[in-house]
Amino acid sequence: MKFSLITTDPHSSARCGVLETSHGTIPTPVFMPVGTRASVKSVEPHELRELNVHIILANTYHLYLKPGNEILQKAGGVHRFMNWDGPLLTDSGGYQVYSLSDLRKISEEGVLFKSHLDGSKQHFTPENVIETERIIGSDIMMPLDECPPSTAEKEYVRISGELTIRWAERARKHFTLTSPLYGHEQYLFGITQGGIHTDLRTSSTNALVDLDFDGYAIGGMAVGEPAEEMYRILELSHPLLPEKKPRYLMGVGTPENILNAIERGIDMFDCVIPTREGRNGRVYTRQGKMNLRSAKYSTDFSSIDEGFDNEVCRNYSRAYLRHLLNVGEILGLKLCTLQNISFFMWLTATARTEIQKGSFMEWKQDFLERFNYNDNA
Amino acid sequence: MKFSLITTDPHSSARCGVLETSHGTIPTPVFMPVGTRASVKSVEPHELRELNVHIILANTYHLYLKPGNEILQKAGGVHRFMNWDGPLLTDSGGYQVYSLSDLRKISEEGVLFKSHLDGSKQHFTPENVIETERIIGSDIMMPLDECPPSTAEKEYVRISGELTIRWAERARKHFTLTSPLYGHEQYLFGITQGGIHTDLRTSSTNALVDLDFDGYAIGGMAVGEPAEEMYRILELSHPLLPEKKPRYLMGVGTPENILNAIERGIDMFDCVIPTREGRNGRVYTRQGKMNLRSAKYSTDFSSIDEGFDNEVCRNYSRAYLRHLLNVGEILGLKLCTLQNISFFMWLTATARTEIQKGSFMEWKQDFLERFNYNDNA
Ligand SMILES: [Zn+2]
Ligand SMILES: [Zn+2]
Repeated sequence: MKFSLITTDPHSSARCGVLETSHGTIPTPVFMPVGTRASVKSVEPHELRELNVHIILANTYHLYLKPGNEILQKAGGVHRFMNWDGPLLTDSGGYQVYSLSDLRKISEEGVLFKSHLDGSKQHFTPENVIETERIIGSDIMMPLDECPPSTAEKEYVRISGELTIRWAERARKHFTLTSPLYGHEQYLFGITQGGIHTDLRTSSTNALVDLDFDGYAIGGMAVGEPAEEMYRILELSHPLLPEKKPRYLMGVGTPENILNAIERGIDMFDCVIPTREGRNGRVYTRQGKMNLRSAKYSTDFSSIDEGFDNEVCRNYSRAYLRHLLNVGEILGLKLCTLQNISFFMWLTATARTEIQKGSFMEWKQDFLERFNYNDNA
Repeated sequence: MKFSLITTDPHSSARCGVLETSHGTIPTPVFMPVGTRASVKSVEPHELRELNVHIILANTYHLYLKPGNEILQKAGGVHRFMNWDGPLLTDSGGYQVYSLSDLRKISEEGVLFKSHLDGSKQHFTPENVIETERIIGSDIMMPLDECPPSTAEKEYVRISGELTIRWAERARKHFTLTSPLYGHEQYLFGITQGGIHTDLRTSSTNALVDLDFDGYAIGGMAVGEPAEEMYRILELSHPLLPEKKPRYLMGVGTPENILNAIERGIDMFDCVIPTREGRNGRVYTRQGKMNLRSAKYSTDFSSIDEGFDNEVCRNYSRAYLRHLLNVGEILGLKLCTLQNISFFMWLTATARTEIQKGSFMEWKQDFLERFNYNDNA
């Protein structure tokens, strides 16, 4: 995988780079909107382009269950299926097996679970997850891992982390034994585990680096631990990870989390916040969050974020969006979703510009002061 | 109101014309998508433009209740509120008072009713409905009428029809006593009633024509009567209505209803079919209806209607839409809605072309044979 570092911040571990895939070039740091079931909720792929989205995420667990591998393979992969010709990353589905399905049984071989949709028995192994991701055709694939809850005992985290490494090794091997199905390159990342335990995170990271993946995800974060613990783990991981490979913090997060993680060397992010909160009328702006369901916006005909360059801010007022949400019109949640995706794309793009200018740390502080001051949603 | 007849079909009463408004020119026959609450469900105004929509409909009853006149007036009317700069027609809300609200009490003065939203007592009169429509700023306004159910006794239809005429006279008068609020012209149509009774429909139509409205709506149709009765009423109305004014058949209808009404001299249509059925996965194509929820489309990667020129048919497969509907993704119902609006716009636009070519009746028969043959939704 071609990943070029363009600038590293002299005042922090922040960096900006360019990640090249067969479906396009991704400037980092980058936020990846979540399109779990081959759809970024309520948004068309051409609208993602218009919002400057570079790469989206889909989920192996959900796609494996529906529409299933047969349909996906006949479709020629998810890019063609959903008409998205940009880069695509797939989660392995490990996290969803643990959070959504019942009766999961983890063994050396893999994980047995019941589908949350129809109760059918399913089996994920490091090998068959790679095969599903070959069928999906994602540009960046994640291997099967186990993600223990933040409440897990250290001994459990240790044993689970060791299993995840053995699974990673099998995934890596199966990756080399199989080939892309649709003529474009696919890459495989490793996922570090070990929770917030210094020794376990260190050994997990070292073991995965030895396996030589195309990039590294930091897994098992944002599962309930304090943000400070997460930042400590990022600081710990920074010198252990190869400088010239991309780093992805899975499932993170708020604007503050993202900027603090960028400061600590993270290049890639995904989170359901923009889509999930958009559906509830909570919108993100450069001046803070707003709850557009509030009656206080009923005669506020100003733009959500005056001068912010996207079609929602150019075309619609707070009062109109409030009306749509108030009467339950679908268009309201869609427009809020567009605004939020646009904001998160702006956030990582601006971080990138500021890193290049050498002013990332000052900008981050100014931005968060303003953003948090107005946080009233 | 400037309405120019371009062509009349020598083989039927079909006609094509051009209706001029301050917000643009409308070629007729025309289908008007319904945007009851200042939003065509799930569709942005710029997307309506891309679907060749010329004019949309909104509803006075719904807008009066929410967001209410104060907000609408502060917004500068519905065009600015929703960012739609094309022509807008408003229903008077009479039909909604009868179908949605409780405890309605009709008197000479107007109608008392309880809001279906919060139970609050409300009062519509011919005069205050005109005032609300001035605030809405619709290009074409409909006056308050009473629309009896198809099961009503003839005596009730007679009395109700006479009241509607007196209300129309008051509305007409109030229309001349008031002015547009936002600097663009507004026009007022009359609504004929009389159910399926030849004598009552005749006297209603004659009385309204005497009041000299800018156009005429045929009301009280498609409320449960057989289609043949509706066609008979259209044939009856045709010679009674002034040739040089536009004619609008309210709330109609299926493709077959629309074409049969065009044959009988109707210029304008509105119906919730494209949006409502789209939300349920039923899509209209030139080859008939399809229910895209059906599993039979799960590996059908063809276009909904191959060669049909809209973004849904160009960009997405039946299998993808079926997947979206199957897993409950909002994008599925939005794309089905786009397809349906596009189809109804195509239907009336093609009728227009065929009228101009003198081949409307043959085309209508061919089209309906093919369309109904494949009707499997
Ligand atoms: Zn689109
Ligand atoms: Zn748009």
